[in-house]
This record gives sequence, C-alpha cells and structure tokens, in this order.
Amino acid sequence: MGHVRVDLNISLDGYATTTDQTAEDPIGQDWNRLVAAYLATRTMQERVFGQPGRGTTGIDEKYAAAYFEGIGAEVMGAGMFGLHLHPDDPDWQGWWGPNPPFRVPVFVLTHEKRPSLTMEGGTVFHFVQSSAEETLQLARDAAGDRDVRIGGGIRTVRPFAAAGLIDRLHVAIAPILLGRGENLWADLRGFEGGYSVATEVAESGTIHVTFSR
Amino acid sequence: MGHVRVDLNISLDGYATTTDQTAEDPIGQDWNRLVAAYLATRTMQERVFGQPGRGTTGIDEKYAAAYFEGIGAEVMGAGMFGLHLHPDDPDWQGWWGPNPPFRVPVFVLTHEKRPSLTMEGGTVFHFVQSSAEETLQLARDAAGDRDVRIGGGIRTVRPFAAAGLIDRLHVAIAPILLGRGENLWADLRGFEGGYSVATEVAESGTIHVTFSR
Repeated sequence: MGHVRVDLNISLDGYATTTDQTAEDPIGQDWNRLVAAYLATRTMQERVFGQPGRGTTGIDEKYAAAYFEGIGAEVMGAGMFGLHLHPDDPDWQGWWGPNPPFRVPVFVLTHEKRPSLTMEGGTVFHFVQSSAEETLQLARDAAGDRDVRIGGGIRTVRPFAAAGLIDRLHVAIAPILLGRGENLWADLRGFEGGYSVATEVAESGTIHVTFSR
Repeated sequence: MGHVRVDLNISLDGYATTTDQTAEDPIGQDWNRLVAAYLATRTMQERVFGQPGRGTTGIDEKYAAAYFEGIGAEVMGAGMFGLHLHPDDPDWQGWWGPNPPFRVPVFVLTHEKRPSLTMEGGTVFHFVQSSAEETLQLARDAAGDRDVRIGGGIRTVRPFAAAGLIDRLHVAIAPILLGRGENLWADLRGFEGGYSVATEVAESGTIHVTFSR
C-alpha cells in the first residue's frame, strides 16, 4: 500500500490561504508571493504552463519533481477545484485547463453531484460526497501500490492530519508573513511526534520542511 | 550608532513562550525542547553554565557566538528577569546566578522600583519605569557605538517590532509544534518588507532565519 502525502505552500507564519483576492484579482498578490518559487520550477513550468525546458533547476525543482513522482491518485476539497466560485456551473472544469497537471484520478470532496470529468493527459475528476476516510479508501483503490496525495486546501488536509492519516507532510515555507488566512499549524500541537523532520533551504529562500514516518 | 537586534527561540508554529510549567517543573519540558540546541552550543555552555571548552561547534554555535558579539546593552521585560515570580523580593537577582551571561548593562522594564544590581563579569541590572522608546534611548546611551539587544520576552519585543525599531531579527526555529503560548508572528503581517531575509539549517535541525536591514 502506498503512502499518504501532503505538500503545501505556506508562509513563515503558517498561513496556507491568502485573503487579498478581489473581483479584479481573483488570485491575489499574496498567493503569487506564496507560490512564486514553486511555479518558477522546471516541473511546474511544464506541468502547469505547458512550457517544457523552462524554469529553475535547483532545490525547489527537486521538490517540484518529487511532488508528482509515485502519486497514483489525488484528493482535494471543493474549494481547490473552484466549486465555491462556480456552483452549479456544469461547464467549470477546474483551474488547470484542458490538460491538468495531476494526470491521475482526482477525487473532489463536494456536496455537489456531478458526472466524472475526463481530461487530457490522464486526469479524471470524480466528485464524491463521502467522508475523508471513505474518500481516502477510494483514492487508495485507484492508486494501487502508488501514493495518494491529499492536495488541499487546508480545511481538507486538517482532518487527515488530526486523524494521523498522513505519512509524509512537506511544507514549502515562503519567508513572508501573511498574518491572516487559514493557518496550517492550528491545533497541530505535537504533530512532530512519530515523524522524523528534515529541512533544507532552496536558492529562492524557500524553506522545505518534511515530516516523514 | 549601533543596531537594535533581537534573537528569539521559537517553534515552527511561531510560539516564543511555553505553557507546560508546573510548580515541580517551573521551566517545563517544552522550553527545554525549544532551547536545547542553543544551550548545547560551546558559547552557551561557557556563558550560561560556566563550562568552557564543552558544547557543539556547528551552525548553532555560530549564531550563539554572534549573539553576544558587538552587544553593548540589553533590554528585557520584567518577566524575563523573573519579577513575575518574585515580586517585592529584594534578594531575587534573576535566573542567571552571580555571573550572568550578558556582561553589559541590562535595562529591565518594570513597574517595580529597585536599586541597580551589579553582578560579576560586567552585568549591571537597571530597573526602569519608562516607555519602550525611552528605555531604548537609555540602552543606546549605555551601548555607545555597540548594538542594543531587545532580549525578550515576546511581549517586550513586539512593540519594538511594531514601531519599526528592530534592525535585525534572528529567529532560531525548533522543528516542533507547540500550538499555544505567545506567538511572535501575531500582528506582524508584512514585517519582511524592508528587510533582506537569510536562512540556514543547523545540524540540530534548528532553522535560523535572519531579517536584516
């Protein structure tokens, strides 16, 4: 059986979401600062922007490449898929265009019933109305021997962390202070127990901390 | 004129104080975990425990040695001196024994009027009933060309940070999650603006982040 993995971009003060979105700037400057180093990597330039051969090749890239390695299925919340902004819109296919970076089955936790969406490149979005544990079982079945990622957002990740279901948590910490949003570390006192922790700093200044067991 | 410097030990989730003290264990296990790597250094073994020639000599030691370099005066809150546990006790001389590690004038912010205390090794504790800014001026005058450290605790540091008075903030982040206490990062959204940020990871796993300008 594969592992359950989480990879998140957070600020130095632990925030995994940002709060400065507007109608004109639905992503927000804070989000751009939070993920800039990650999106600049060779892997993300190819996977997210369809720009092979471009992007950074240092320590951030090592983590970006590892992000996709060995993943057999993904679980995400409705918010990460964008359903909160596109409720009851049958044409909405997520943020990632016709060829999403996942390239595996993706289980989207939502109260909204939708038919599965088959995209280019191997990504199939399934919309499930199950508990975290039940959804994880669906994802494990789809992943086979490979790993399952709990993709986000933070409210989707937290119950898996609290239930001790995460085998590897990697945070890419941007050295910025956001001061508000959803904090990954809330209610995770003592989470490090039972994990080994390894840290390295990328050329970009991003601090990569990995809890693994 | 020297710089104003702050060095703090915090947890990965930003806590600079701990909450598990008891009458039997007035320091607490969490505090021990927070500062273990720092106290293990060669500098702290000599300065705090009077054990020259012992202790670690890696990256943590580099920061521990730098902690005392160029400091001409120190400012601390009443709590860091222990006045909250020893009110109106004229015999209380702080936590550090007859030869405290500071070896410079130390200005203790307190409502309690006490005569100055001259210790071995150059440390003189002055008890002042002034504002943060006025106390900083006293410390600057005492330090001359050298730097002033705002030693702590966190409630003493925060107004200096909010007022933009800190030239260099170094945090030694222990890779543990305390989940409660006083959080350094509260209300410091955007603090990184105007500073350059440098990070390195010690052999102990401690993450050293320095904001300087």
